[in-house]
Amino acid sequence: MKKKFEIVQIGIIHSPYKTKDECPIQSRVKPEGKGRVELFPEYEKGLETIETFSHIMLFYIFDQAGKIELYRPTFLDDSSHGVFASRHPCRPNGIGISIVKLEKREKNVLEVSGVDMLDDSPLVDIKPYIPRFDIYENASNGWTENKEIRPKPLDRE
Amino acid sequence: MKKKFEIVQIGIIHSPYKTKDECPIQSRVKPEGKGRVELFPEYEKGLETIETFSHIMLFYIFDQAGKIELYRPTFLDDSSHGVFASRHPCRPNGIGISIVKLEKREKNVLEVSGVDMLDDSPLVDIKPYIPRFDIYENASNGWTENKEIRPKPLDRE
Repeated sequence: MKKKFEIVQIGIIHSPYKTKDECPIQSRVKPEGKGRVELFPEYEKGLETIETFSHIMLFYIFDQAGKIELYRPTFLDDSSHGVFASRHPCRPNGIGISIVKLEKREKNVLEVSGVDMLDDSPLVDIKPYIPRFDIYENASNGWTENKEIRPKPLDRE
Repeated sequence: MKKKFEIVQIGIIHSPYKTKDECPIQSRVKPEGKGRVELFPEYEKGLETIETFSHIMLFYIFDQAGKIELYRPTFLDDSSHGVFASRHPCRPNGIGISIVKLEKREKNVLEVSGVDMLDDSPLVDIKPYIPRFDIYENASNGWTENKEIRPKPLDRE
């Protein structure tokens, strides 16, 4: 039996990108993009010592994503891939994750760079990026190997 | 205003760990731990081409976690940290993420290694781990730098 879980917004991510077409396909592609993570004030205590990390992972909801498609072309490729073999937003449980650089913390607000999400994306979690746990140097790039970064196809999500 | 979102279980993660005390504190600590990810059959098409990746990210719910505490000691340290500066399970929106090695796919079932979650954890998303996007070699380990891996403190979560 499928369980259901309720996720509550804990803040807002402000980014320079107002439309899907403007969003870079990954943080890595536009490291200079500045954003501001506004955690709702009641969660501020949860940020203590976060400023010791240079990079953090933002978890947010793809609240503007279109119809869920399990098998579809992605931004990097016109061939179809399973949505779990891609980061495409049109997925069951549209949870997005982006690794961003933490530039500065002021109380409940984090200044970050390398954002790739839409402005006003609902924040649902923050975790530290920890190289000693998160870097797998020998991992493969799978089907994305050698795919060049290209503009997003304009005729589809 | 806080938005709420419904997340639906898409599968089950089978692991060798039946109790919290048995779970390693991170995948990295016990790479040999074998698991089996059983995606519900209706999502199987979403796995197409996932076998081209050596590592994947599993997203699941910490459904056995205790009371949420915004500021608390963690497994690695007896000093307190903000929960968003740690990976501790007792957090608002208990979404866990683990990077595991994909050993084999058979239809809707993935054999993986490096699991660190409880047996029967509810799966909510799978994304590929992509070194060209996910490796930040110059990132800092923050307060976790030099913290030795140790047994979990037994008197608390």
